[in-house]
Amino acid sequence: MEPYVHLVQYYETDAMRITHHSNYIRFMEEARTDYLERLGMGYDRMEAEGLRSPVMNVECKYLKTTTYADRIQIYLYVKSHTSLKIEFGYVMQVDGEVVCTASSWHCFMDANHRPVSLQQRYPDFFERMLALQSPLA
Amino acid sequence: MEPYVHLVQYYETDAMRITHHSNYIRFMEEARTDYLERLGMGYDRMEAEGLRSPVMNVECKYLKTTTYADRIQIYLYVKSHTSLKIEFGYVMQVDGEVVCTASSWHCFMDANHRPVSLQQRYPDFFERMLALQSPLA
Amino acid sequence: MEPYVHLVQYYETDAMRITHHSNYIRFMEEARTDYLERLGMGYDRMEAEGLRSPVMNVECKYLKTTTYADRIQIYLYVKSHTSLKIEFGYVMQVDGEVVCTASSWHCFMDANHRPVSLQQRYPDFFERMLALQSPLA
Amino acid sequence: MEPYVHLVQYYETDAMRITHHSNYIRFMEEARTDYLERLGMGYDRMEAEGLRSPVMNVECKYLKTTTYADRIQIYLYVKSHTSLKIEFGYVMQVDGEVVCTASSWHCFMDANHRPVSLQQRYPDFFERMLALQSPLA
Repeated sequence: MEPYVHLVQYYETDAMRITHHSNYIRFMEEARTDYLERLGMGYDRMEAEGLRSPVMNVECKYLKTTTYADRIQIYLYVKSHTSLKIEFGYVMQVDGEVVCTASSWHCFMDANHRPVSLQQRYPDFFERMLALQSPLA
Repeated sequence: MEPYVHLVQYYETDAMRITHHSNYIRFMEEARTDYLERLGMGYDRMEAEGLRSPVMNVECKYLKTTTYADRIQIYLYVKSHTSLKIEFGYVMQVDGEVVCTASSWHCFMDANHRPVSLQQRYPDFFERMLALQSPLA
Repeated sequence: MEPYVHLVQYYETDAMRITHHSNYIRFMEEARTDYLERLGMGYDRMEAEGLRSPVMNVECKYLKTTTYADRIQIYLYVKSHTSLKIEFGYVMQVDGEVVCTASSWHCFMDANHRPVSLQQRYPDFFERMLALQSPLA
Repeated sequence: MEPYVHLVQYYETDAMRITHHSNYIRFMEEARTDYLERLGMGYDRMEAEGLRSPVMNVECKYLKTTTYADRIQIYLYVKSHTSLKIEFGYVMQVDGEVVCTASSWHCFMDANHRPVSLQQRYPDFFERMLALQSPLA
């Protein structure tokens, strides 16, 4: 699957003339929602199903700096999962070089705040998610 | 009344090594909610009364740059008002020098999205607001 | 010219479930740099020429709220100009409806902080800029 | 040492009516620079010494949601260190309850991008840092 692309904006840089490290957490969210939409679980459907996926943890490893006007290619894949929890992996590249790797852990809940097993409720979608590959694998 | 103070954070700077101009709109919100709280209309009371004040317009004039670790003193006052609309004025200073002046226009609505006249419903609070002075006046 | 498109991200919403008003100032910057690049004055060229364009003022009128996953189409045009100062106009639409109109004023400076007249130094680029049209005109 | 306090702003909330998770990374930076300043290594001194401390990794565990107007107390301490790398730990509390725990890893460099051992170059400051305690310890 094609990576999500984030074009670094001027307002995302800081006084060291690089992308401020906090913004990568936002790029992760952008990439995640974009991939989920392309896999058939876009915002509209999640709203309609009352599905929510709070972020439980994030981890981010900064390997190379990026800056204004860089095009960051972000790959998403499932790094690990249990019945109720998914760890997404992220690989971010600029011009083929890895600039950042990251993980985020999510649970899924329905409108009544009850935990939802994606694997049971949306087996097709879940399988498509599991098929995503890390470009480093 | 004492001005609200915003200490510029590193993540608010940009690659020109100055505070990114979009952040002043956020500083305005910080100052406004701080002043309203000190005048007796804090978040808790607004929630309890179901009061909302959407922003209709903003205007911001950048006079001098600021940067990381600057302490911006922000003064709020009522620049103009009709029965349903208030224009807040902002004067931002660092070390006694004006760095930015700004305005924001707000209407006020109750929980049923009906317009509220602050002057009629909260005359004491409204008078305290009107007593705020621009430091440049 | 095709408008710039900003897809509203979840992290740009606020507790009223709408796009926080401060973000529109950032969308303006995104649209401006995108248009300038398409008109032949991209980041690389500006860097090479030592050209900077500080923001002097911004004005933003919020007409309709937007929210997560909305696609905001942003049109840029030159609203007024003197030899040293340009006022850009912005019209933001979602599904053909105007949600926000805005202006920003800029001067241009070279690497030595001397004011630059775009019209004299880059007449072709300047003319292309002047040819931009407001969709409301 | 007294914790750093961050008052959650409206613009830091999202459509779930909670503080957006990316902002905690920013709160970490606020707390870190505030503690370093109180320990005698403020921005002015770091600038004067040409000292920089890029963020290598961050980790953040979200335990309870927070929202607008919450006062987050942030405790900083040294979780681990080698001669060239420091892991700061963060404990964030609201009303005595832990809402978030986090870590960030930093190296230190001088103006010539050479690694600096804080322990060797600033032994007094380093000792004051090591004396910081986690409130959970």
